[in-house]
Amino acid sequence: MVFVLHSDVSDKAQEAFATSFEEKGFQTIISKGTEHTAICLIGNTAMVDMDHVVETTDIVAYGKRVTEQYKAVNRTIQPEDTLIRLGNNEFGPDTFTVIAGPCSVESEEQIIKVAEAVKKSGAHLLRGGAFKPRSSPYSFQGLKEEGLRLLSLAKQETGLLVVSEVMNHNHLYMFDDIDIIQIGARNMQNFDLLKEVGMMKKPILLKRGMASTIEELLLSAEYILSTGNNDVILCERGIRTFETVTRNTLDLSAVVALKQKSHLPVIIDPSHASGLSSYVAPLSKAALAVGADGLMIETHNDPAKALCDGAQSLDLEQFDSLMSDLKQRVHLEKRAM
Amino acid sequence: MVFVLHSDVSDKAQEAFATSFEEKGFQTIISKGTEHTAICLIGNTAMVDMDHVVETTDIVAYGKRVTEQYKAVNRTIQPEDTLIRLGNNEFGPDTFTVIAGPCSVESEEQIIKVAEAVKKSGAHLLRGGAFKPRSSPYSFQGLKEEGLRLLSLAKQETGLLVVSEVMNHNHLYMFDDIDIIQIGARNMQNFDLLKEVGMMKKPILLKRGMASTIEELLLSAEYILSTGNNDVILCERGIRTFETVTRNTLDLSAVVALKQKSHLPVIIDPSHASGLSSYVAPLSKAALAVGADGLMIETHNDPAKALCDGAQSLDLEQFDSLMSDLKQRVHLEKRAM
Amino acid sequence: MVFVLHSDVSDKAQEAFATSFEEKGFQTIISKGTEHTAICLIGNTAMVDMDHVVETTDIVAYGKRVTEQYKAVNRTIQPEDTLIRLGNNEFGPDTFTVIAGPCSVESEEQIIKVAEAVKKSGAHLLRGGAFKPRSSPYSFQGLKEEGLRLLSLAKQETGLLVVSEVMNHNHLYMFDDIDIIQIGARNMQNFDLLKEVGMMKKPILLKRGMASTIEELLLSAEYILSTGNNDVILCERGIRTFETVTRNTLDLSAVVALKQKSHLPVIIDPSHASGLSSYVAPLSKAALAVGADGLMIETHNDPAKALCDGAQSLDLEQFDSLMSDLKQRVHLEKRAM
Amino acid sequence: MVFVLHSDVSDKAQEAFATSFEEKGFQTIISKGTEHTAICLIGNTAMVDMDHVVETTDIVAYGKRVTEQYKAVNRTIQPEDTLIRLGNNEFGPDTFTVIAGPCSVESEEQIIKVAEAVKKSGAHLLRGGAFKPRSSPYSFQGLKEEGLRLLSLAKQETGLLVVSEVMNHNHLYMFDDIDIIQIGARNMQNFDLLKEVGMMKKPILLKRGMASTIEELLLSAEYILSTGNNDVILCERGIRTFETVTRNTLDLSAVVALKQKSHLPVIIDPSHASGLSSYVAPLSKAALAVGADGLMIETHNDPAKALCDGAQSLDLEQFDSLMSDLKQRVHLEKRAM
Repeated sequence: MVFVLHSDVSDKAQEAFATSFEEKGFQTIISKGTEHTAICLIGNTAMVDMDHVVETTDIVAYGKRVTEQYKAVNRTIQPEDTLIRLGNNEFGPDTFTVIAGPCSVESEEQIIKVAEAVKKSGAHLLRGGAFKPRSSPYSFQGLKEEGLRLLSLAKQETGLLVVSEVMNHNHLYMFDDIDIIQIGARNMQNFDLLKEVGMMKKPILLKRGMASTIEELLLSAEYILSTGNNDVILCERGIRTFETVTRNTLDLSAVVALKQKSHLPVIIDPSHASGLSSYVAPLSKAALAVGADGLMIETHNDPAKALCDGAQSLDLEQFDSLMSDLKQRVHLEKRAM
Repeated sequence: MVFVLHSDVSDKAQEAFATSFEEKGFQTIISKGTEHTAICLIGNTAMVDMDHVVETTDIVAYGKRVTEQYKAVNRTIQPEDTLIRLGNNEFGPDTFTVIAGPCSVESEEQIIKVAEAVKKSGAHLLRGGAFKPRSSPYSFQGLKEEGLRLLSLAKQETGLLVVSEVMNHNHLYMFDDIDIIQIGARNMQNFDLLKEVGMMKKPILLKRGMASTIEELLLSAEYILSTGNNDVILCERGIRTFETVTRNTLDLSAVVALKQKSHLPVIIDPSHASGLSSYVAPLSKAALAVGADGLMIETHNDPAKALCDGAQSLDLEQFDSLMSDLKQRVHLEKRAM
Repeated sequence: MVFVLHSDVSDKAQEAFATSFEEKGFQTIISKGTEHTAICLIGNTAMVDMDHVVETTDIVAYGKRVTEQYKAVNRTIQPEDTLIRLGNNEFGPDTFTVIAGPCSVESEEQIIKVAEAVKKSGAHLLRGGAFKPRSSPYSFQGLKEEGLRLLSLAKQETGLLVVSEVMNHNHLYMFDDIDIIQIGARNMQNFDLLKEVGMMKKPILLKRGMASTIEELLLSAEYILSTGNNDVILCERGIRTFETVTRNTLDLSAVVALKQKSHLPVIIDPSHASGLSSYVAPLSKAALAVGADGLMIETHNDPAKALCDGAQSLDLEQFDSLMSDLKQRVHLEKRAM
Repeated sequence: MVFVLHSDVSDKAQEAFATSFEEKGFQTIISKGTEHTAICLIGNTAMVDMDHVVETTDIVAYGKRVTEQYKAVNRTIQPEDTLIRLGNNEFGPDTFTVIAGPCSVESEEQIIKVAEAVKKSGAHLLRGGAFKPRSSPYSFQGLKEEGLRLLSLAKQETGLLVVSEVMNHNHLYMFDDIDIIQIGARNMQNFDLLKEVGMMKKPILLKRGMASTIEELLLSAEYILSTGNNDVILCERGIRTFETVTRNTLDLSAVVALKQKSHLPVIIDPSHASGLSSYVAPLSKAALAVGADGLMIETHNDPAKALCDGAQSLDLEQFDSLMSDLKQRVHLEKRAM
């Protein structure tokens, strides 16, 4: 159950209202939208007489029952889109934001070269893996702390803000200079990790697990919001199906679903979804057309020699060409890029 | 193994060349592209010395080995796109062709009303189910022969060419006035039906089965081409996965895969893929952006009262609005609509 | 809605009761169990006052609402198991019935040799494909009518009753001497074919489609029962999933589900499910333990040279050894074999 | 590449042989079977002349190339089954070991009551969740440290050894009195956690992820073995498919696959696989018949009031009845229980 408050209610009055329910044993989530604040009750709300509360509480505009298990991420509770601003970048419906970079940071020369190139092509943020989750213990596992250091260096050189994946909450202390923390598909239901990043003050990029439903993705985001961090960017990166031509099956309908059910921004990773570089450009254009808020694209200066996932990486020229194409399309969509 | 012939080879010489292999026990497929004719050998080609054939046969330009099981539909054999022309319509890379109409033909009034409206909005062909494959024997099974008659009537009234599904080859005699014969997802591997429509002289719209791989879809098309009918339009309509928010999961990567592997046109059915009308517009835009050659969209004058699949049908106004949007996008893609 | 009648009601009174509802626009299904007859109404039963009917109709013992879409196959309507008797064989809970034979009939010598061997090992029926549904048009498609003739011959020689698949209802006239008609996985939703075999007077072996739900399988069986043929044997043969070690994923839970929801017998095809002969024995034992009523096992005199699916076929010795093992287990289950 | 040593080679000679390869840049895994020790090389073995090594090294019996990515868990490297002994219990082919207990530890009274009852029925180990991974942050998350304490208490009272799941390696210090550490399905690819439990000296129960392939499960086990812990018990617990009657689809073929590919013991969790208590007995019997080494079964004194997963829990009487049935079957399989 959610109570939407009038627009001029003081913080103190909001808290008093929330506290009155906490004393009755409910958990409350305060969701501050751009226009209205909403107070959501978690617990057995069957015994709450909603109409009575609305009628007898001045600060309440109206109440709604939220049948879904996810509350704070629910568009019912916050109808307006969440905008995540970071430097000059924004994730939201008026913009189209592109994160580019290699699967893994391999060397100073490589990451600087890729960073400079993708910046020139118009990418907004730089990605680079330092800790790599790999199915086999004998595959390259990333440069780890050194990888993060090189990513910081590339940030200094180019001014691009940076995104990198954390696999283990004991490593979070190394991520101070990382601007967006990525939770990978395999960790989407690592609930303790979700709670840890829920206590951080920076945006979290949460990737859908490869066999996770839309509802499970939203519940994982709910772990982060309910712990206190509202800045979650959802990322669809392909689901596991019977088809083997592509590594995974990109579920673009998920963008429509997530946008209807939640106010959080949604981006697409066409590189992991397909596993094949020749699919990246057409899937990127489709992602924009279907309403995604941005892309994360693997880009490498020399894909054939990449230590990880070379087959799905664009080279620098292919990335530049894709960005040129996307710019025209973003213009038609009346978004900024 | 395929032999691509020089451009000026006579039909007689082509046939003589093909016959020489048939006499050795091979099946041959003659694929006539716009520039070159190719002769494909089916059988144990390991014993054919390809280079020797090329060197010793004047009419042969070059040879290639085709490792895939599908031959006639293979882009290796025919590099240029197949164009399917029908009245003023064309399925191919320079156009974007929209088929619209109700899931089932329900009455004269309904089909005429929908036909006139979708024509006005710019649809190129009219669809309407007369024989409906339904999971339950107690669900509405279509108006059958009467449905086909009403579809003919709508064709006369509006001039729109018409598409309808055949479930049983004993019914094909009733489809004389139907311009494109649809093979539904459940019949994609009804091989006897595929062979029957392979003997027809009109285009076949072949829908991907809901758990069929890309390769199986191409092999089913191969049944039709190898029987003699080259005019096959492939249709992706969603595959079955674990996700339940949408009825099926639309696999837009399939468009990229099919275009790389085959020369046949590919369209998208966003209505059956999602099962939800609010997903149809965004998925249609994505289908265009990813490179599909057209759409098949369920449209109804009164979706709430539809006898079949109302939840996924656009009403006439929604369809008109979508077509306006698509026209601008098609223009950007430098295609005609 | 179903009305279960008292045990001593005459056929005439049953029909009169059914007719009274047909006159009100309902379809009725009369299900004659071993103890009670049940009359099931299909249509909008919301307007029927069930209690009033029970109270005012002498011949009615009690009424029940059937919420599932499937009616005639529903255990609610017929609580006791359907027993299908055929010669000395029976499909039902007191027996365990094994169908064995090659994927395809290849020659007189082959089918006679296999038939004699599997009979000696204790198989109850002989299977052999004459019409083979194959993904590729260039794969061996079966000996067709000649295959059925050879199967008849093997039946004469050994006395084993025979099972073979029909792909096309125009071929049914050739199946006079075939004792059980098989509908393959790819035709599970070929509804016209289901209706045709629904008019036959012999048992139908209905295989689950590779991406069909339990409910869809039951609805396909409902097509057959509602057309008049109550003798349907359901067969689970593996579903399509992301796992690639086995050709399909055998869903043994389906046996439990089908037994709870329906009164029809259920058998398992471990050969197609796994695609690998070394899996057949363990999966067969598991099928018995989980409660299946029998097995269909591919058996070949020389699997390495089989024209179709050799990798999943047991050789004659392996089959004999499996049957010996199964006999002990069937004894423990207090079933006959 | 693996080198199997003669049976009488000293530890010192084994190490010297391994070291000689480590000096050339290979990682080595020493696998000590009951009869032979094998030394496996990880790295680019293309440049190793295997025959030359065998011929020139006295202590080497023979060499084999291992093409699979998993090495230490591979049956090629260790042909004999791994036996895991723990108190009086054993996981391996001669025994059938049953772990039973509630989804979560809820109270002292509950866990003691369940422990006493399952012991009386013949269960070998007690399970009980203290840290519960739940899709929703608002669901019951377990009693945590208190839950582990109550589990210890039940162990003291009954003498049953105990199994509990760890979600976070920072919690491992609390698991001193837990005899088998469980890694849940959602953490199967939490690679840092796998490495941590790889450094422990107690058996690890590794559950298959719900969309993980057989190969990925074996690679996750490889993380544990290659870190130093050879005592891994694999557990199949259902995979995610399109079918919705059961919560997941139990993949019993996985037992056959895992037993062929690896020497590790494999058990089945029929409770999570089906999500329905009425499926647990038939699936348990099938698990034994297909060759599994044991079961993990959710058992609760009052399933209707369970705080977690009550619908899939057996009550104490149902569990007792299942154990009686299994004992007879285990006897037939010539195994001990």
